[in-house]
Amino acid sequence: MASESGKLWGGRFVGAVDPIMEKFNASIAYDQHLWEVDVQGSKAYSRGLEKAGLLTKAEMDQILHGLDKVAEEWAQGTFKLNCNDEDIHTANERRLKELIGETAGKLHTGRSRNDQVVTDLRLWLRQTCSTLSGLLWELIRTMVDRAEAERDVLFPGYTHLQRAQPIRWSHWILSHAVALTRDSERLLEVRKRINVLPLGSGAIAGNPLGVDRELLRAELNFGAITLNSMDATSERDFVAEFLFWASLCMTHLSRMAEDLILYCTKEFSFVQLSDAYSTGSSLMPQKKNPDSLELIRSKAGRVFGRCAGLLMTLKGLPSTYNKDLQEDKEAVFEVSDTMSAVLQVATGVISTLQIHQENMGQALSPDMLATDLAYYLVRKGMPFRQAHEASGKAVFMAETKGVALNQLSLQELQTISPLFSGDVSCVWDYGHSVEQYGALGGTARSSVDWQIRQVRALLQAQQA
Amino acid sequence: MASESGKLWGGRFVGAVDPIMEKFNASIAYDQHLWEVDVQGSKAYSRGLEKAGLLTKAEMDQILHGLDKVAEEWAQGTFKLNCNDEDIHTANERRLKELIGETAGKLHTGRSRNDQVVTDLRLWLRQTCSTLSGLLWELIRTMVDRAEAERDVLFPGYTHLQRAQPIRWSHWILSHAVALTRDSERLLEVRKRINVLPLGSGAIAGNPLGVDRELLRAELNFGAITLNSMDATSERDFVAEFLFWASLCMTHLSRMAEDLILYCTKEFSFVQLSDAYSTGSSLMPQKKNPDSLELIRSKAGRVFGRCAGLLMTLKGLPSTYNKDLQEDKEAVFEVSDTMSAVLQVATGVISTLQIHQENMGQALSPDMLATDLAYYLVRKGMPFRQAHEASGKAVFMAETKGVALNQLSLQELQTISPLFSGDVSCVWDYGHSVEQYGALGGTARSSVDWQIRQVRALLQAQQA
Amino acid sequence: MASESGKLWGGRFVGAVDPIMEKFNASIAYDQHLWEVDVQGSKAYSRGLEKAGLLTKAEMDQILHGLDKVAEEWAQGTFKLNCNDEDIHTANERRLKELIGETAGKLHTGRSRNDQVVTDLRLWLRQTCSTLSGLLWELIRTMVDRAEAERDVLFPGYTHLQRAQPIRWSHWILSHAVALTRDSERLLEVRKRINVLPLGSGAIAGNPLGVDRELLRAELNFGAITLNSMDATSERDFVAEFLFWASLCMTHLSRMAEDLILYCTKEFSFVQLSDAYSTGSSLMPQKKNPDSLELIRSKAGRVFGRCAGLLMTLKGLPSTYNKDLQEDKEAVFEVSDTMSAVLQVATGVISTLQIHQENMGQALSPDMLATDLAYYLVRKGMPFRQAHEASGKAVFMAETKGVALNQLSLQELQTISPLFSGDVSCVWDYGHSVEQYGALGGTARSSVDWQIRQVRALLQAQQA
Amino acid sequence: MASESGKLWGGRFVGAVDPIMEKFNASIAYDQHLWEVDVQGSKAYSRGLEKAGLLTKAEMDQILHGLDKVAEEWAQGTFKLNCNDEDIHTANERRLKELIGETAGKLHTGRSRNDQVVTDLRLWLRQTCSTLSGLLWELIRTMVDRAEAERDVLFPGYTHLQRAQPIRWSHWILSHAVALTRDSERLLEVRKRINVLPLGSGAIAGNPLGVDRELLRAELNFGAITLNSMDATSERDFVAEFLFWASLCMTHLSRMAEDLILYCTKEFSFVQLSDAYSTGSSLMPQKKNPDSLELIRSKAGRVFGRCAGLLMTLKGLPSTYNKDLQEDKEAVFEVSDTMSAVLQVATGVISTLQIHQENMGQALSPDMLATDLAYYLVRKGMPFRQAHEASGKAVFMAETKGVALNQLSLQELQTISPLFSGDVSCVWDYGHSVEQYGALGGTARSSVDWQIRQVRALLQAQQA
Repeated sequence: MASESGKLWGGRFVGAVDPIMEKFNASIAYDQHLWEVDVQGSKAYSRGLEKAGLLTKAEMDQILHGLDKVAEEWAQGTFKLNCNDEDIHTANERRLKELIGETAGKLHTGRSRNDQVVTDLRLWLRQTCSTLSGLLWELIRTMVDRAEAERDVLFPGYTHLQRAQPIRWSHWILSHAVALTRDSERLLEVRKRINVLPLGSGAIAGNPLGVDRELLRAELNFGAITLNSMDATSERDFVAEFLFWASLCMTHLSRMAEDLILYCTKEFSFVQLSDAYSTGSSLMPQKKNPDSLELIRSKAGRVFGRCAGLLMTLKGLPSTYNKDLQEDKEAVFEVSDTMSAVLQVATGVISTLQIHQENMGQALSPDMLATDLAYYLVRKGMPFRQAHEASGKAVFMAETKGVALNQLSLQELQTISPLFSGDVSCVWDYGHSVEQYGALGGTARSSVDWQIRQVRALLQAQQA
Repeated sequence: MASESGKLWGGRFVGAVDPIMEKFNASIAYDQHLWEVDVQGSKAYSRGLEKAGLLTKAEMDQILHGLDKVAEEWAQGTFKLNCNDEDIHTANERRLKELIGETAGKLHTGRSRNDQVVTDLRLWLRQTCSTLSGLLWELIRTMVDRAEAERDVLFPGYTHLQRAQPIRWSHWILSHAVALTRDSERLLEVRKRINVLPLGSGAIAGNPLGVDRELLRAELNFGAITLNSMDATSERDFVAEFLFWASLCMTHLSRMAEDLILYCTKEFSFVQLSDAYSTGSSLMPQKKNPDSLELIRSKAGRVFGRCAGLLMTLKGLPSTYNKDLQEDKEAVFEVSDTMSAVLQVATGVISTLQIHQENMGQALSPDMLATDLAYYLVRKGMPFRQAHEASGKAVFMAETKGVALNQLSLQELQTISPLFSGDVSCVWDYGHSVEQYGALGGTARSSVDWQIRQVRALLQAQQA
Repeated sequence: MASESGKLWGGRFVGAVDPIMEKFNASIAYDQHLWEVDVQGSKAYSRGLEKAGLLTKAEMDQILHGLDKVAEEWAQGTFKLNCNDEDIHTANERRLKELIGETAGKLHTGRSRNDQVVTDLRLWLRQTCSTLSGLLWELIRTMVDRAEAERDVLFPGYTHLQRAQPIRWSHWILSHAVALTRDSERLLEVRKRINVLPLGSGAIAGNPLGVDRELLRAELNFGAITLNSMDATSERDFVAEFLFWASLCMTHLSRMAEDLILYCTKEFSFVQLSDAYSTGSSLMPQKKNPDSLELIRSKAGRVFGRCAGLLMTLKGLPSTYNKDLQEDKEAVFEVSDTMSAVLQVATGVISTLQIHQENMGQALSPDMLATDLAYYLVRKGMPFRQAHEASGKAVFMAETKGVALNQLSLQELQTISPLFSGDVSCVWDYGHSVEQYGALGGTARSSVDWQIRQVRALLQAQQA
Repeated sequence: MASESGKLWGGRFVGAVDPIMEKFNASIAYDQHLWEVDVQGSKAYSRGLEKAGLLTKAEMDQILHGLDKVAEEWAQGTFKLNCNDEDIHTANERRLKELIGETAGKLHTGRSRNDQVVTDLRLWLRQTCSTLSGLLWELIRTMVDRAEAERDVLFPGYTHLQRAQPIRWSHWILSHAVALTRDSERLLEVRKRINVLPLGSGAIAGNPLGVDRELLRAELNFGAITLNSMDATSERDFVAEFLFWASLCMTHLSRMAEDLILYCTKEFSFVQLSDAYSTGSSLMPQKKNPDSLELIRSKAGRVFGRCAGLLMTLKGLPSTYNKDLQEDKEAVFEVSDTMSAVLQVATGVISTLQIHQENMGQALSPDMLATDLAYYLVRKGMPFRQAHEASGKAVFMAETKGVALNQLSLQELQTISPLFSGDVSCVWDYGHSVEQYGALGGTARSSVDWQIRQVRALLQAQQA
């Protein structure tokens, strides 16, 4: 009989349960992750019950003590699951009852699994956000440190994967670091919305027993309380936001990984991945593959898939709690683990990467200065559109003659425009080229230094 | 010859272009939407060029005047596109040249389409966010007003679509309004990140001609400037964020629509949709279908699809500008239009919906008070778990006897627990039931009033 | 030193490996699922090597025997993983070497993990497809059996969730069964494309040692061999197809679940879920929730998320093998498990569901016959559009008068059209109504019987 | 009054319609695409009505003639839409009535927009599939022709974007062509499921007027009829399948585009895109960007987004027709247009691409023969694992000495293994290397020829 099995809904059911259904329904296999926050939430709730006169001080102490015992068993790996423990909440309360007896039955007064589970998940995710923030800051810091150290290395900047203009290597590093600062900012905003207490919302209608939700909030150190009990128990915005945060962050990392995979090719040969982040081939002895970067790139798909899956599950769902919402947890756990690994591996990759400065320099070619050649004419007074066309003609002339752009003679250039004179030779210096780009955000040294200061200041502000 | 066609890249190409490729490549069919912001951006940029000494005052005035003319033609519908206008930027500059001559060729000095297009899109989207915020506030306000007016209507609250507990109708309205306040908050955050100026980033390396980006920022009223030119020209976080914002908001509206579609069924009959938001059947004369709500529900898919599409396009893309990024605009335009329509239709639906208060009341049944019956025993000192089981036994007894839960006699109840006494009759009053749920966020009148005040305060704070 | 650790790429690496990277890179935690097919593939390959003269008969026998030993250890749960076993392929070969010595080193001759892993996955998935086909057939059969048994039960058919026309309950069951027959058909097509042998493709260039791929195909009972070694080792179409197959199938099941969740509500009360597939509430004693159906509905999101994730991972990937492809396996394993559970639970739900025939009958109302009323006039010669409008007027008249449509008197009807006469009373019989819909696919008994025969024939053909 | 506006549901509505709602609800802006198939479907249906005795021969002729007139107006661009034409079906019937009078009102007898719209969409999509199949075959054919012509060009094969082994350029082309043959096969399967007639299903219950669906099927040349009217009017599997087909095909093309974008870089310089498929930069005169390929790559996102959007819309939808299904059409139209352009542009790119054979050859390096070096030892009897390790040691020795792998002296090699002898020099010939890979699917000339024959045979079989 069902009531003997100790299931939460106790007295009513008379039918048997299909074992496949039982497993399908149970979440204990993964929601064990929540053991610590579940105990934490229950401790706060029992304090709330005591304040509301629903527990005596002695009962509360008994419960608090029992819950500590439960936590200890989990921490020491001695907690034993029953086959009837369908979820972590049931398991913890069942164990509490074994430890302290009937008083345990008072803990759930006025509480529902609907508000309990979402409180637990918010507690867990709040902590996870802090951890991931720390890992993200570490990655950004590593990038900025490296950018500062290698400020004087020049290499080709690409658009459409075609060589475009000479830039500083640090400018490239910072382009990715700056993208990550937005992820960092967004994560703080997501955390702010996670950090809201739903406990005291019951199953749907709220709490009828005078529990003080502000007290619960303070106990659990939440920033605010939820406004509406129906919404509180069934909205998973904070989960969707977290999953999207991770998806966008992974998109950034996938783009950085793609760049580095290209730069690791024989053809580019700009960087060399540390052996610690490479693997070999089971067939080809000469191979050294950038597996770490490929895995980072690939995880963008997995993480986004979880975000897509959750949104589809939420679409068109009747309001308030439906069992569909149980899908939230595995998504969150998997994405958290993935982000943690990805951020750490990315930090390792960046901090151990070797650059081939000589190859970088040799990849710069005079045709990348065609834009500067146009600006040369602009500075002599030619409207940009004409200058752009004139420079294009020079490129075409050089190609036709089979020489480098900087090997066109002054006379040849003057057939294109009489504005060319001897000082055109300055254009052909790569160091001179990058220093022109001194507007904020550009690749001149002063601007790169400014970027470094800006990102450092952002990090400091966010950690405050 | 290509240069005769007046294409931007002028002097170099010698091959012909495949007409299918030309159409495939062109964005003018949809980026016309940007005509106004493109002119706005160019006007600011010409002021920047003048400050930097690259335009004389007279040239600047000529350009500004010409750009006003271009805008006027667009506004009046007299702007004529050429077959060589592949995008709005080319079209506007081409027209400017026709209007003012060679000086037009100075406008693009130091600018690239890479920074131009993303500046335009940010200007456009900033305006769109303001519009959508306004529409969202209007919807929330309508809901709150209605919640206030119909505070005393009770009806069944459902979980798992099973009748759960009596709640106020206003509590249901507010559960959806509260969800929308989060969308409103998020939209402000997205707007903050949209409101950052990329102009002055050039194609990749920055601006080499001393253009003052702070001045451009002030001219265009942006909140900040982008930090890194490579990132600035190729990141589309703000687009992804906007699309995700819309996706999550649509998820909320899809859930509200689902509820209302159910409440509109013959079986529930809680509400009746205004004819203005219903349609009939081409075959069945008696039908009145909630098409408006179904369309709202369905658009969650479309909007999310755009978000998914953009993220997939971004995944693994080499850094800096690639033509792949051209996919951003149609997504933004379609989603903006959809959100605008959806928010207005939802407002219309809510403001014209009729409720059937009598049906709502009749749908309340004594078994929905089983939880309150358990609380009755809790208040008499029984631990909740036992009370829950006792109440379950009462439900079972009533079912077995074929009577309503409140028709069990006191004696019958006392066979379950001796704690039952005469005052149990108070439990069976629905009004009394809801008033118990007085903790913040609950369905008691005081708590509903508190919710209304909170949402109103939020709206006011956001509009400030 | 790396070579001591026995890693496949042996002699070359000198750097240490980051432990987080090691875990990030390893797939052994989940690709253990492949132990059996990995052994199976290796046995076939060693036969191929022997035929090609690369193994002596004695060496082959030694390897085959050793592999059987390995399989036995897995089957009996005695296989011990080393910390250096990064994947199942390495683990099995490592163990083989321990068991039979250096000859084990000949097994991988001409093979690469690139062709090995995809062969294993295809073997595994081929078996899974057969299992899932069986479960799907079982579900369809259950539905058809039920449809046949309950052919004479009538209830309302809905469109837009509004009552539309009377239909047979079996017609509803069959509408979902027919959808599932398409899934069944598609699964066979997916299986056909899974059933193609990639072994013998090496890492990229093919096999250089005269291994006969046709012999390998026959050994492993594949239907065909892959055409191009570069494509063979890196295409994951068959995975994407499988994931999409599951997504579409889940969409069907989510729609069926949605219907049943509605039919389980107090308001509809058409069906009652068996206790075996319901759960209760931790707070509300009277609740019985359709958790099984909600879980089925929700899994559509999860499964689709995996499909979306894989496609995003594949997007823009350089051709041939990249480590990104490692994402395929967890997706496949999770989706297979989910589908297996969902199909079995759905079968259980359908086979134990109780229907409330009386409630179904009472939910039929005369206004649902408005279409038939129009057809009545059509049969009297009125063009359909006019008949539709006339019937609409009758509906409106009845509503205005506050009576049921069938309670309008003949005189009243005749004010709308003189074509109404005494025989209009036949229209008001629900049984008569459904029998009109005798065209193939309709809800008349003959047509429902035809549907049952068609689906049964399909099942038989597919199982052949 | 609503009935004056001539809306299909005529007689009942008394409220006014919100203009935003009206636009939100209307589909005429895009479903005009269906004008031709709508007429086609209506013509067949009127023949069915005549056979069933619901139209006289004269009425049928009048309708057929009128419909031809309607079609003519569309074809000539003279069809004028009314503001009340909410969709193409309403518009065509409205016009028919203007042309032939009241008889037009008989056309819709027993038909519903529910079966009408899905019939139209199937007719349209069937034609589209044929068109897209043709374009896909053209692309594959172009690739195979090119593969045949350039069979003797060798270049590096990559895995993980690292140089792996020498392969034929044709082997690369064929790797993508072979992937596309699977798309072609799948498209035929999708078309088969599109090619099923739903007409005669009515709104939900079927057709009550004796219309012969087999006759309709024959008239419209469908392969089969739908089995269940509820499913027929509301399933959109064929749309989802089409969208997924396109998504997977785009994934293939995105991978081919990615390869070619890399091969177009200065660093690889293996191929040069025709000017017809490149564009320049508005800023940098020397740039020639592979826009065509980037657009192809990016469209994978857009197309998949439509697939994701539709599946989300379908998830959890109550069965039978809901207005949500209206989302199907824009998705189909956009994806069809995109696929048509992408396939044609890809064909143009492949047929005009120039290859730089010399660069390709120079990119081959002796270390790419390390696998062959291992096989050399295998052929001398060394177990593969040892050979792989020995070859790895040779690579390491060469790297340490700073020489190419083929420049190690025989004595040096013999310090690694005494099995090395003078004939090792054969290993260093690239042509000799590729010819080893003679197993089916490999890169030897005979195997490449076999592939070409296989693909040609497949194309022929599919076109049959």
